[in-house]
Amino acid sequence: MPDDAIQPETPAPDAAISRRRLLAAGAAAGAGAALAGIAPQTAGAASKGATRKVDVVIVGAGLSGLQAARDLVKAGRKVAVLEARGRVGGRTLNHSIGGGHIAEVGGQWVGPTQDRLLALSRQLGVKTFATYDKGDYVYHRSGTRRTFTPDPVVGAIPPDPDVSDVVDLLLKFEGLLGEIPVDKPWAAANALAYDGQTVETWKLANSSTDGAHFLFDLAIEAVWAAEPRDVSLLHALFYAAAAGNETTKGSFLRLLNTHDGAQEQRFVGGSQRVSIEMARRLGSRVVLNAPVRRIVQGSGGVTVTSDRGVWKAKRVIVTGPPSLTAQIDYEPQLPADRAQLTQRFPQGNAIKCQAVYDEPFWRKDGLAGYANGDFDSVRLTYDNSPPDGGPGVLLGFLEGHNARVWSRRPAASRRAAVLDSFAKFFGERARKPKAYFEMNWSDERWTRGCYVGFTPPGVLLDFGAAIRTPVGRIHWAGAETATYWNGYMEGALRSGTRAAKEALQGL
Amino acid sequence: MPDDAIQPETPAPDAAISRRRLLAAGAAAGAGAALAGIAPQTAGAASKGATRKVDVVIVGAGLSGLQAARDLVKAGRKVAVLEARGRVGGRTLNHSIGGGHIAEVGGQWVGPTQDRLLALSRQLGVKTFATYDKGDYVYHRSGTRRTFTPDPVVGAIPPDPDVSDVVDLLLKFEGLLGEIPVDKPWAAANALAYDGQTVETWKLANSSTDGAHFLFDLAIEAVWAAEPRDVSLLHALFYAAAAGNETTKGSFLRLLNTHDGAQEQRFVGGSQRVSIEMARRLGSRVVLNAPVRRIVQGSGGVTVTSDRGVWKAKRVIVTGPPSLTAQIDYEPQLPADRAQLTQRFPQGNAIKCQAVYDEPFWRKDGLAGYANGDFDSVRLTYDNSPPDGGPGVLLGFLEGHNARVWSRRPAASRRAAVLDSFAKFFGERARKPKAYFEMNWSDERWTRGCYVGFTPPGVLLDFGAAIRTPVGRIHWAGAETATYWNGYMEGALRSGTRAAKEALQGL
Repeated sequence: MPDDAIQPETPAPDAAISRRRLLAAGAAAGAGAALAGIAPQTAGAASKGATRKVDVVIVGAGLSGLQAARDLVKAGRKVAVLEARGRVGGRTLNHSIGGGHIAEVGGQWVGPTQDRLLALSRQLGVKTFATYDKGDYVYHRSGTRRTFTPDPVVGAIPPDPDVSDVVDLLLKFEGLLGEIPVDKPWAAANALAYDGQTVETWKLANSSTDGAHFLFDLAIEAVWAAEPRDVSLLHALFYAAAAGNETTKGSFLRLLNTHDGAQEQRFVGGSQRVSIEMARRLGSRVVLNAPVRRIVQGSGGVTVTSDRGVWKAKRVIVTGPPSLTAQIDYEPQLPADRAQLTQRFPQGNAIKCQAVYDEPFWRKDGLAGYANGDFDSVRLTYDNSPPDGGPGVLLGFLEGHNARVWSRRPAASRRAAVLDSFAKFFGERARKPKAYFEMNWSDERWTRGCYVGFTPPGVLLDFGAAIRTPVGRIHWAGAETATYWNGYMEGALRSGTRAAKEALQGL
Repeated sequence: MPDDAIQPETPAPDAAISRRRLLAAGAAAGAGAALAGIAPQTAGAASKGATRKVDVVIVGAGLSGLQAARDLVKAGRKVAVLEARGRVGGRTLNHSIGGGHIAEVGGQWVGPTQDRLLALSRQLGVKTFATYDKGDYVYHRSGTRRTFTPDPVVGAIPPDPDVSDVVDLLLKFEGLLGEIPVDKPWAAANALAYDGQTVETWKLANSSTDGAHFLFDLAIEAVWAAEPRDVSLLHALFYAAAAGNETTKGSFLRLLNTHDGAQEQRFVGGSQRVSIEMARRLGSRVVLNAPVRRIVQGSGGVTVTSDRGVWKAKRVIVTGPPSLTAQIDYEPQLPADRAQLTQRFPQGNAIKCQAVYDEPFWRKDGLAGYANGDFDSVRLTYDNSPPDGGPGVLLGFLEGHNARVWSRRPAASRRAAVLDSFAKFFGERARKPKAYFEMNWSDERWTRGCYVGFTPPGVLLDFGAAIRTPVGRIHWAGAETATYWNGYMEGALRSGTRAAKEALQGL
């Protein structure tokens, strides 16, 4: 790990989640709300050795696992949530930047049609605020910097004749979404054709200018932290079609946009507070530093072995990136479909890089903090300052190919390259932050890549159904199993509720 | 598992490999050769508890691991080969069909330019014989059956005007192989374009008839047990370019053909005998039923924890399908490149189905036993009878999509569908075998898919180098790491020798 990278959590001496640890993790989270609605559970405190019994064991205390636990507890069931790390929140993680402020080094935004997440955060007392989006966007290409007023519909597309056909390309993509059933994309009429090609192939077949290719690449990288060559067209269409809800159709532009899009709002105190507040209400049901190593199913129930001991249950809900779920030793072994699926569901590559300044100086220049560029390092930035605008935080992403290349290079040169991008976007002042930090999710032992798991060609068609199909007493949750807002916090919550329902039916 | 599927091995009471077990596994293998060239090692016998010390631990007793062990022992080093199963041989496995005869349910053929395998088998006293290939081939399409004399160059391509442009397609593919450096395909001049598309995309762009598409699909399925949509064009070109050696260029036709191709010869007593003979000479160095769970690297060496106890060594060689190597718990964790690669390296899907008859009755009809068809079950068959031609064995493959579909269906209906294909190819007599058995390698706990691991688009380009890059004291071997004959027994042997050399340099 580089000097100023976020360090992995070290195991806590006491694995049962404590109020002190939660408050520490929550930073300026104001984590004082009542434990309303969920009764305490006294039997859960972890001490290695004895076998404990619950109705349902949940593997993973990210948003999906915690939501499943809430639903099961509300239904009067006894649960244990076994979390491998020394913290809750999965791919959401707060980082203190001093002065009571935080910046997230993981997932952070919430937007329209993400109704479960918006309702839950309100219920938990976690407020939202608008992502700073006033002023012009910056666009840097072929050595030329320009600024422009974002379009209310196509957002970050600059008014540049060289890239004009990217709008056609995006609208053509958008036009295909209606064909894709979000609960079974493999059943789409053209599934065979769409899952037979990469997004790259489709891009080349449907656009001709370098400018359109450049901006479309940026859009794919921004959503999947992968390259158009990595991703199945069918998967990409599904994922965009899933960016909606039961009453509002999915949209690729909604994924890309800040205004009226997936980056519209942020959480006061940081997105991890949603998980922290859920976990606090679950109390000792949540057991930290408990990586699950083995799951044995028998006729009477399921036995789950973790580094913090053994639990017996009637059902188990396994969350997390599909590829990581293959690292558990299952007895009996999982069926071929599931084993093969997890060989084919890689995580994207994102390094989230942030620089802290005394103030968000770009705002004075009439800039929103959003920028796109053709650099070989950071090609996308946001204003990630706290709600009151002081200090100023610039957020830049290394995504896909650039994340892969830069993860192999020394931290100092990576930092310099990131700040060089920031300076080219926002001026020389960006080179001298008062703090700099980054998070490479591919280095995270219990995630191994962000933002999300995606599928290359051929996978949804022949293995797609295995993502949610229960295996005996095992149910699958996690953002990658969602039908709406797959890959997002909203999708994680939805998947937790769906898995809890399945488990309840089996109790 | 279906009734007549090959059952997974049950753990043996004594994990150290015994002459009795080897002979049993080797069936009619005549396993009586001298332990020439390798001195006995007395310290290796496994008894759980004590930590044993060797120079190099090798994970996996397939061809790569056993070859690495041989090389290290010849160099005077102490080794332990820890094998998860109760047998050696990895993806080669003999199955007794009675009367002292065997038929392989795993990899089985050897052909020209596979020099290491041919030399080793000679040295071990394992003889080869020609795959039965006399007479006509059968071709069944759109309800019409025809027979034809195979072409000496393009083998199984039928003289059918409807499929004539598949020859152009195959030759066009063949023409690209010279561009691909087998030790670093990602450095090919057109790597970005080739790794940006599926083989399916390339097929559709370079041929126009259904007939060509059908036969090209068959060829891809026959080599990778995957569909053209699953595989990166760059990977496919690399794999074919690797089907040669330092003096003879690789060839896709060599992969496909029996005459002068990869299916040219078979091993008397079965291909597993090569591994069994290697293991017998290694004696108690080979420890069965010892799945490795954890590898801890420190400044002084490496500690390998298996279900049969703990070994300390200076170096470790990890073999096996790349996706399976991710199931070991590494401390410190593997770098992002390697972790991401193993998320992106799926195994193909093959169910090897065989029917035994009193005699190879098709030979009397002037047929070679080779057939292709457009059925939704078995689309490719071989004569797999013992060397003396009695009894007769028909071998049919369920591959790629068909293997995936049929693995979900009841064993009885699968058997009926396989025999229905056999009957359509070779006549009604094929419906009444005296024995039927099959092996689904996706169900095999320690393989989880055959024939080989392949890469979808984008993987070789950004992660390819990680397949062989050592991680501290860990070296990687196995068929998927080979530069020549990647995915084949020959490649496995070559990878073992390469990894042993690396380990020796580090001792």
